[in-house]
This record gives sequence, structure tokens and C-alpha cells, in this order.
Amino acid sequence: MEKLLVGLTFGGALLALIFALLTALKVMRFPEGNDLMKKISSSIRKGANAYLKRQYKIVIIFFAIMFLILGVMAYFGFLTPYVPFAFVTGGFFSALSGFIGMKIATASNARTANACQQGLNRGLRVAFSAGSVMGFTVVGLGLFDISVWFFLLKFVFNLTPEAITSAMLTFGMGASSMALFARVGGGVFTKAADVGADLVGKVEAGIPEDDPRNPAVIADNVGDNVGDVAGMGADLYESYVGSIISACALGVAAFHSLEAMALPMLLAAVGVVCSILGTFLVRTKEGATQKQLLSALGRGTNFSAIMIAIVSYPIVYYILGKENWKIYFAILAGLIAGVLIGQATEYFTSDSYKPTKNLAATSETGTATIIINGLSVGMLSTMLPIIIISVCVLVAYYVSGGAQSASMGLYGIALAAVGMLSTLGITLATDAYGPVADNAGGIAQMAGLDEKVRERTDALDSLGNTTAATGKGFAIGSAALTALALMASYIDKINTIDGGAQAISNLNITNPSVLVGLFVGACLPFVFAALTMNSVGRAAQSVVVEVRRQFKEIKGLMEGKAEADYASCVDLCTKASLREMVLPTVVAVIVPIIVGLVLGCTGVVGMLAGATASGFLIAIFMSNSGGAWDNAKKYIESGVHGGKGSDNHKAAVVGDTVGDPFKDTAGPAINILIKLLSMVSIVFATVVVNFSIL
Amino acid sequence: MEKLLVGLTFGGALLALIFALLTALKVMRFPEGNDLMKKISSSIRKGANAYLKRQYKIVIIFFAIMFLILGVMAYFGFLTPYVPFAFVTGGFFSALSGFIGMKIATASNARTANACQQGLNRGLRVAFSAGSVMGFTVVGLGLFDISVWFFLLKFVFNLTPEAITSAMLTFGMGASSMALFARVGGGVFTKAADVGADLVGKVEAGIPEDDPRNPAVIADNVGDNVGDVAGMGADLYESYVGSIISACALGVAAFHSLEAMALPMLLAAVGVVCSILGTFLVRTKEGATQKQLLSALGRGTNFSAIMIAIVSYPIVYYILGKENWKIYFAILAGLIAGVLIGQATEYFTSDSYKPTKNLAATSETGTATIIINGLSVGMLSTMLPIIIISVCVLVAYYVSGGAQSASMGLYGIALAAVGMLSTLGITLATDAYGPVADNAGGIAQMAGLDEKVRERTDALDSLGNTTAATGKGFAIGSAALTALALMASYIDKINTIDGGAQAISNLNITNPSVLVGLFVGACLPFVFAALTMNSVGRAAQSVVVEVRRQFKEIKGLMEGKAEADYASCVDLCTKASLREMVLPTVVAVIVPIIVGLVLGCTGVVGMLAGATASGFLIAIFMSNSGGAWDNAKKYIESGVHGGKGSDNHKAAVVGDTVGDPFKDTAGPAINILIKLLSMVSIVFATVVVNFSIL
Repeated sequence: MEKLLVGLTFGGALLALIFALLTALKVMRFPEGNDLMKKISSSIRKGANAYLKRQYKIVIIFFAIMFLILGVMAYFGFLTPYVPFAFVTGGFFSALSGFIGMKIATASNARTANACQQGLNRGLRVAFSAGSVMGFTVVGLGLFDISVWFFLLKFVFNLTPEAITSAMLTFGMGASSMALFARVGGGVFTKAADVGADLVGKVEAGIPEDDPRNPAVIADNVGDNVGDVAGMGADLYESYVGSIISACALGVAAFHSLEAMALPMLLAAVGVVCSILGTFLVRTKEGATQKQLLSALGRGTNFSAIMIAIVSYPIVYYILGKENWKIYFAILAGLIAGVLIGQATEYFTSDSYKPTKNLAATSETGTATIIINGLSVGMLSTMLPIIIISVCVLVAYYVSGGAQSASMGLYGIALAAVGMLSTLGITLATDAYGPVADNAGGIAQMAGLDEKVRERTDALDSLGNTTAATGKGFAIGSAALTALALMASYIDKINTIDGGAQAISNLNITNPSVLVGLFVGACLPFVFAALTMNSVGRAAQSVVVEVRRQFKEIKGLMEGKAEADYASCVDLCTKASLREMVLPTVVAVIVPIIVGLVLGCTGVVGMLAGATASGFLIAIFMSNSGGAWDNAKKYIESGVHGGKGSDNHKAAVVGDTVGDPFKDTAGPAINILIKLLSMVSIVFATVVVNFSIL
Repeated sequence: MEKLLVGLTFGGALLALIFALLTALKVMRFPEGNDLMKKISSSIRKGANAYLKRQYKIVIIFFAIMFLILGVMAYFGFLTPYVPFAFVTGGFFSALSGFIGMKIATASNARTANACQQGLNRGLRVAFSAGSVMGFTVVGLGLFDISVWFFLLKFVFNLTPEAITSAMLTFGMGASSMALFARVGGGVFTKAADVGADLVGKVEAGIPEDDPRNPAVIADNVGDNVGDVAGMGADLYESYVGSIISACALGVAAFHSLEAMALPMLLAAVGVVCSILGTFLVRTKEGATQKQLLSALGRGTNFSAIMIAIVSYPIVYYILGKENWKIYFAILAGLIAGVLIGQATEYFTSDSYKPTKNLAATSETGTATIIINGLSVGMLSTMLPIIIISVCVLVAYYVSGGAQSASMGLYGIALAAVGMLSTLGITLATDAYGPVADNAGGIAQMAGLDEKVRERTDALDSLGNTTAATGKGFAIGSAALTALALMASYIDKINTIDGGAQAISNLNITNPSVLVGLFVGACLPFVFAALTMNSVGRAAQSVVVEVRRQFKEIKGLMEGKAEADYASCVDLCTKASLREMVLPTVVAVIVPIIVGLVLGCTGVVGMLAGATASGFLIAIFMSNSGGAWDNAKKYIESGVHGGKGSDNHKAAVVGDTVGDPFKDTAGPAINILIKLLSMVSIVFATVVVNFSIL
């Protein structure tokens, strides 16, 4: 039975990886276009490669130090000896997910631009295929890592289920740390280049976006790859793996059986099949309108979601037995909550609805009012997701029998997150093709391709913004649910430690350690957002200075007679973002240890609850404010409120620039932060129980 | 013994009120200046009076409805019959505090301007005296209300200590609702007029601030009075009373004795004496520099704080006995925490320190970067106050014996808040004189007084900004501590209700009701901030339209030949702000009832904890971002980074305008919100226990 389960999971992993490989080969068969396109694409590729190489060099130092620390802890018996190795593999696979995603994205940008010369649909196929490679690589590597470790721990080292999940949670910590480095580093890179390029190019020099005369233009395109692709890949690898292993751990706690542990893995494996089937539906006839394209994408993701909703019923029934079949509704609640949060996101950020339309209208009274209104749109938009996730938590808890046994209820919450992410293969594909289309647009512009090619890539890009809203819903929703599940895993973990049960006995919210932990935890996302926004600000300022210098010093640049020194901007962004990514990650690793040592493990639980609540809110606030500003600007560009070039448009551009670090750096990084906090807490649990002050 | 205590408290109340009256008479003896000054002052007074009258009309409807609801609840036995009456008196005295403050402020603005003609020191004395009237009125009315009710409930109706505090908590709810109306309504009024006047007058028409040609200029000055004075008065009345009665309630819960209940009242009464003594130190020789003025103010507040720190030791020792004298350190912790939070606020918002200086420098790269940086300064600035308040909570809890008995520890936390606010008489005086000086500056400008008069009022105003930072520290810090104390009171209250003990038995933070409550509670300040900012935006836009209309339609206005229609702007702001103040307050009253009915009382506790944590953070974030932008603008105006009129200055003005609703509307209102939520929960506790779903 267990061997069958691990075999099925491993099979899912292989299936996903093979599908990714075949799709990649298909993409590579498309031609890259003319020499100039090849040259531009190659510059972007080189920049992205160079960035990732240097990023990995720094990350390796961090991992080496952590490996040593964990090794010493294991030596003194605070950890099992598997932990340091699990930590490193988690980081490795997370990095690999980002790396492969970046590879395929930089290989497909020129191909997408070229395909768009022949038609919108052909362009969609190339870009969506590239997204699929990334989606299924993430899923495949995640399941691979999980199934191999499960196999080793269970059949080679013969550990108990509790010890297995405990070790497996550690590779979650590896994956999360790597994801945070990738998200913060990539996020700072992409926004520094973007903001820097826009401030000098668009605002000061008055040249269009992606103009080859702008020295930061290649850096901007490199940024799309290292931030939106590599960062997102590492990030979602972490989400996917985190949700599965936290569900496994809670399953063991609730049922003390391998079946409950196997369920999330199996759901994920079946999700791979549903996702692959879904991708085949993403095709449309030549000459399709944008609406038809959108419905093609929607068809794929909806089909996969409905499939998994149907198939998971017999799986739950078969694995958990007749008496526990209602847990199925927890999975369903997760799926539905993900979709609803996505729709709420779309309502608040799409220019088809009132909030963004009104936001665009506030540009009439100037920059200040569009900023005030954008902030309040973001803050107000937290309400619906909070209600959705709250209902989801309650449903998942009570249908799973939480009223009788808290650990069963918590298992239900974790399964809701697994349900939400089970079709990640295809939802990530629809999310990740956006940056590819964005890059294709840049190449079309720089290579001077026909106007209508750029129109097509823009259509793809804007389509991507809409699907990305749904993707964000899943990412944020699953992060909150997984964080709650990990908090429960933390408590379970403490209870297995000598003296732990007593240390954690008073989790009453009026316990001052819990309360103070809550305050500190709620503060962390604020501090984290501040740090990352500052990083973007600092890095962007250095880009501004460099671009201004080149405009001044390189003669003939503005006339198009001389070439800009693109490499220096790429190099600048690389250095700045690598310098800036270290502090936030180190803070995220150290704070839970300090809180634990001072306040004890009850303080840690308070901190996790506070960070989850406030992190969820701030992530939504910042993502949606940023999204609304972005689309309000695009809405004005479509010709309303004075259109492009008007004062209103300038006000909207300021809003969009403020929104950039909001939605692409700080917001997504907080999703990782709230999970990394719990993972670190779990790994250092024994130390905290033994050495805490309070 | 009890009669002596209530007598002492009542004596403190009388002393404060008499001192306020004498000071008011002293202020009124100063001349108002020339006819034009009298006329302007009278317009402002009329506008403010008209606003408050109409505000009270709306508020009375709310209070009548609530009185009926509470009456019906009392009739059916869900409340004691005293509750509806206590509710109404709380609201009445809170409104009265604001009203008297407004009266004296509008009577002193011209007097301050006139006094400034003779010298800075004379101006300070008038303005500070006006502030003192407000400070001691608030304190006096608070103690009056408390001591009279205590006398009635104890000696006339012969209630138990538990029943006494339970009824007294209700007038906290009345005071909080009134304070919220006053803060939101006044905050919207003042910022709508300010933003509207600036956007058209300063930015579009290029005329200076407070120019009589600007039709919104009187509204702007009225706004200072109804927002910064009347709003603040009602607000701090609520804080003061709330901190004392929550400490009384927890004292009864911890010691089951009237002594523990009397301690906070007695501390407050003694605080009155210390504050009055302090005010006598606020004087300086003629021709004093600004620094000397500041140190004169500091001397007064510091003296009062040190006095109360010394005197409260024997009081605690005498009242609580030898075995409990360590509770004294809780009071001390509160005092110190208030000062430290004030200093942290000053560090992040004063242009003497790096954060605001750096913020001003980001104006070099444009509006977007100053907005991004200002937001991140505010977010980062939450860290220190969180640490300070956390340490304060832990110290107050453990020195009070929380390790042995949780209720004693919670009593300690409540006493820390009382300690923080015990010298409110003088701290509020240094806070409330700012708007008076601001108004005086406006009158000096409009009446065409000598340039150096305006310089002096500006010096007073900027001094006020610094002292206001400390005031904010006390307001925010005490709000968080009081909210925690009220949460504890809520739990005590539930435990006294039939079936309550069982309903609230599982306050474990992993209880899904607690968790979901936490999520919803943490969301409330975001929604609340969004609503109030939107209100300001909407109201300001209507002012913009009206001012533009007058500039266009009134011939000769710009040349100074025709007079603007000031009344129409005042009327517009009045209508807009009264319309906008209802929704936020109603939300704050209804949400805790809904949460209670759906999630039960454990959910309510979660909500209170979540709202306190996230409200504290957002209030600090918004206040400090706003303060930093304001001072960055002033710093640039002092001549750095291009000075007044440069592009950098324009960018800073946008930052300041965004910061206006941040620091003067949304931020302070959240302080009230987090307490009102608990008060409402306490009043509706019996209903929730009997009718909740979960």
C-alpha cells in the first residue's frame, strides 16, 4: 500500500517532468526570428544567466552556513541527522525550478515575438507552452523531492511517520529560504530596472518604453526573467511543497497513519494529470479575439479544477474511509476559495470594474488624490479575501471533524491549501507566460518589428495580467492556509519534545507571551515591506544616476547613432539586488529564533498567528493597490481622462511607479515570509524549548 | 474609606475644572486685536459652531437609537437598567469636552495672533493657556463623570463592585462612539478643506497658504478647530476615561475589592495636581529662542511626569498594601513607554534626524520615490513602538504578579495605561495649543499683519508639531494598553454570564473561532482607514470643484477686489463630513456584534486581539508617514534640495497632501476604533453568549 502510494507520487513527478521536457522541445522547434532578435534575446539571456550565477554564489554561502549550524545542532541531538540534508535539497530544487523557468523563458521570448508576426494564436501557443514548461517543472520537481525523501526515510531508514514528516518539513525551510532570496533579489532587480528606466527614459527624456536608446532597457527585460520568472518559480515551488508537507504532517498528527499522510501527495499527483489534460484545451482558432483567447485559457484552468474536484472525492473516500469522507469538502472549499479570491482581486484591480475606473477618475484632481485613492482601494480590497479565507477555514475545520478533534480540523485546513494548489501545473502556466509575452514585446520594439506585432504581444501581456489575478488569489490564499497549517505543525512538534507539552500548555490568547508574540509577528510584514521597498528605492536611484550619465556622456545615443552600455545597467542591478536581498532573508530567519528564545514557544505561536494575519492583509493590500494603479494607468492610456501624455496620465504614471515595488517586490515576498517564519520555528523548536527565557 | 476615595476623585475633578475656568478667564482678558482680526475670528467661530450644532443633531439621532436598543435589552434582562443612562452620559461628556475645547480655541486664535504682535513669549502664554483649558476640561469632566457614577452606583444603588464597573464600562462605549464621530467627522472636515484649499489655491492658482482670496481658507481654519481641537478633545476624553474604568474593572476582578478599583481613580486625581503644578513651569523670559520655548514646555511635562512617578509609589503602597507594592513598576513602565514611543515618533518624523532628511532627499528623483520612501519610513517606524509596548506589557504583567494570577497581571497592564495618561492635563495642553497657533497664523496672514507676527505663530506651530509627537506617543500607546485591558474586561464579563464560562473556555489561539476572529479583527483597521481616506478624497474633490467655480465666476476675486464666498465652502465641508462620518462609526458598532453572533465570544476575543495589533501598527504607520512627509516638505522649504517652488518641493507637497488624511483622519480614528470595538463587545456580551451560532 505505502509503496503503491509513493510510486504513484513518483509517477506524478515523472509525468510532470516528461510533459515539461516534451513541451520544452516543442517550444525550441519554433524559430527565433532575425539576427537582431537573436542578438537581443541573447543579451537578455546572458544578463539573466549572469545574475542567477552570482545569486547562487551568495545563496550557497548562506546554505553552507545554515548547513553547518544545522549540522552542529544535529550533532548535539537537537535535530535528526536527516535535517541538514533535507534543508539543502529543498533549497536546491527550489533554485532549480527558478533556473529552468528562467532558461525556458529566455529561450522563448524571441520565439514568441517571432510567432506573433504570424498571428496572435501562434504567439499564444509559444508563450503558453513556455509557461507550461515552468508550471510542470515546478510541480514535477516538488513531487520528485517529496517522493524520494519519503521513500528514503520510510523504506531505507525505517522512520516513524512522525519522524518522516518532521524531517520533510525541513526541506520546506530550505525551499522557503531559497524562494525568499529569489523573490526579494529578483523583485528588487526587476523593479529597480523598471523604475529606473521609466523615471529617466519615459519621464525625463520622453522616449517610449522598451526604446533601444534607453541604457536600462535590457536590464528591464532581464528583470522580467529573474524576478517574475525565476523568482516566481522558486516561490511557487515553495508554496506547493509547503502545502503538501504541512498537510502530510497534520495528517499524521490527526490519524497516526500513513494513509492520511499519503492523501495530499496523491491529490497532488492526480492534480498533475488533470493539469496536463487541461493544457490541451488551451487552443483556439486563428484570428481569435482577445476575449476568445481569454476563454481558451479559462477553459484549461476551469477544466482542470473541475476534474480535480470530481476525482478527489473517490480518492478521499477510498483513502480515509467512509467515516471521514466529508474531509472532501475541505479540499473543495480550498479550490472554491482560491477561485473567489482571484475574482475579488480581479474586481478590485481590473479596469472593467468600478474601483479601478474611479481610481483613474481621481487623476483629474492630481497625483495626490490618485495615490490616496489607490492606497484606499488596496486597503478596502482586503475585506473580501479575509471573509472568503475565514469561511474556508471554518468550513475546512468543521467538515473535517474539528469539533471532535482539533487535529482533524487542522488537517482539513491544510488539505484546503493542497486543494487550492493541486492544479498548480496549469495555473502557473497561465501566470508564467505573462513575463514571456512582456519580454517578447520588448524584443519586438527593440528589433523594430511591425507595429501589429507589438499590438499582439501587448494583447497577450494584458491577457496575462487578468490570469495573473487569479494566480495571485491562489498564491495568497494558499500561503495563508499553509501558514496556519504550519503553525499547527509547530505546536505538534513542540508537543513531541521533552518538556515541550508543558511549555506550550498555555496558548490562551491572553497569555502575555502569546499577545506580545502576536504584536511582534503582526509587525514583521510591515518591517519587511519597508525593507524591500527601500531596497527598490535605493537600487532604482543608482540606475537613475547611471542612465542619466550615459545619456549625457555617450555622444549620439539619443540620435540612435551610438549604442548604450546595456551591460553596465545589468551589472548595477545585479549588484544592487544581491546586496539588498540578504538583510530581509536574514531577518526572516533570525527573528523567530529570537522571539522563541525570549518569549518561549507560546510567543512563537503568537508571532506566527500575528504574522499570518497581518501578512495576508498587507500582501493583498499591496498587490491590489499596485494592480489597480497599473490598470488605471492603462485605462487612461486607452483614451479616457485625457489619454496618454495628459497631466492625468502623468499622475497615473506616478501611481503605477509607486505600485511597482508594492505588487512585484514587497507583496509576493510576504507570502513566503509568513511560511518561512513557521519553518524556521519548527526547525529550531528543540532549542527554543530548552533555552527560552520566559 | 470608600467615601474618602470618591471624595478625592471628585475633588480632583473640581480642581481641574476650576483651574480650567480660571485659565479661561485669564485668556479672555487678552485683547482680540483690530476689527479685521475680530471679524475673521468671528467667521471661524461661527463656522465651527454651526458645524458642531449640526454634528450634534446627527449624533443625537444615533444616541437616541442606541438608547432605545440598550433600553430594550435592559428590559429583557440582557443589561442592567443603568447601562442606557451611563451610555448617554459618556457620550454627553465626551461631546462637551470637545465643545468647550472648540469654544476656547476659537476665542483664543485672534488673541494669540494679537499677542504675537508683542512677542513670542506672550503668544505662547495665550496659546498654551488655551491648550490648558482644554486639557483640564477633558480631565475634569472625565473624573467628574467617573466619580458621580461611582457615588450613585455604590452609595445610592448599593451595587457590588463587579456590577459597578460593568455599568461604568458602558459610559466608555458612549464616550468612544461620540469620540469616533468627532474624530472622523472633524478629521474629514479639516482635511477636505485643507487638501481642497491647497490643491486649487497653492497648486493651481499659485497663491500662498491662508490667502484671503482662497474661498476655502475660512473652512480650512474652521477645520483646525472642529478636527484638531473638538475631535481631539472628544478622543482624549475617551482615552482617559477608558483607561481608568478598564483598570477599575480589572482591579475588581483581580482583588475583589474597592481599593484596587479606587487606585486608578486616585492616581488620576493626583495626576491633576501634578499637571497643574507643571503648567506653572511653562514660562520663559521675553526674547526667548525657539529652543528655550521648547525646553519651557518640556520642563512642564517632565516635571509633572516625574512628580507622578514619585507620588504614585506611596499611593500604591498605601492602597494595595506591602505585598503588592511592585505594581508600582507597572505604572512606571507605562509612563516610560509613553515617553519612549514619543521619542521614537520624533526620531522618525522630525527633520533633525536621518529618516526625514533622507525622505526629503528622495524628492530629487521625483514624486514616486518620495511616496515610496515615505510609506516605507512609516512602516519601518512601527518596529520600535512595538518593541517598547511589548516590553511594557511584559513588565507590567509580571511585576504585578501575572505569573501567579493572570488577572493581577492584566490589572498591571491597565495601570500602565493609567500611568501613561495620568498627566494628560498638561500633555494635552502642549498638544492642543498647536491648532490655536495654527489658526493664529491664518488670522495674521488674512488680516495682513506684520511679517514677523506670522513668523512667530509659525514658530509656535512648529514647536507644537514636536510636542504633538510626544502627545501621539501617549495617545497610541495608551490606546493599545487600554484595548488589551478592555479585552481582559470582556473575558471577565463573559465569565459572569450564565453559560459564559463554558462559551469562552477555549481561548486557545488555534481554536478556529479565535483565529478567524483574529483575521477579521486585523482587517478592520485596514477597512476603516480605507473608508476614512475615501471620505476625505470625496469631500476634498467637492471642495476643489467649488473653489474652482468661485475663482471662475466671482469677478475681481483674484485681484482682491471682490470677496470670496467663504460660507459656501464651510457649508460644503460640513455637509460632506457629516455624511461621511456615519458609515465608519456604524461599522465599528455593528461588526463586533456580527462577529459575536457568528463566531461566538471566543471569536470576539480573537477579533479584539487582531484589531489591537493591526490597529496599533496601522495607526503608527499612518501617523508617522504623514508626519515625515509634512516635515520633509518643511525641511525642503527651509532651503535644501532646491527649496520652495522647486520641482523637489512640488514632489514633497504631494507627499504632504497624501499624508494629511493619513496622520489627521485615519490614524487617530483607529486609536478610538480599537477601544470602541471592545466596549461594544462588552455591552452586547450577554446577547452574544445567548444567541451566537458557533
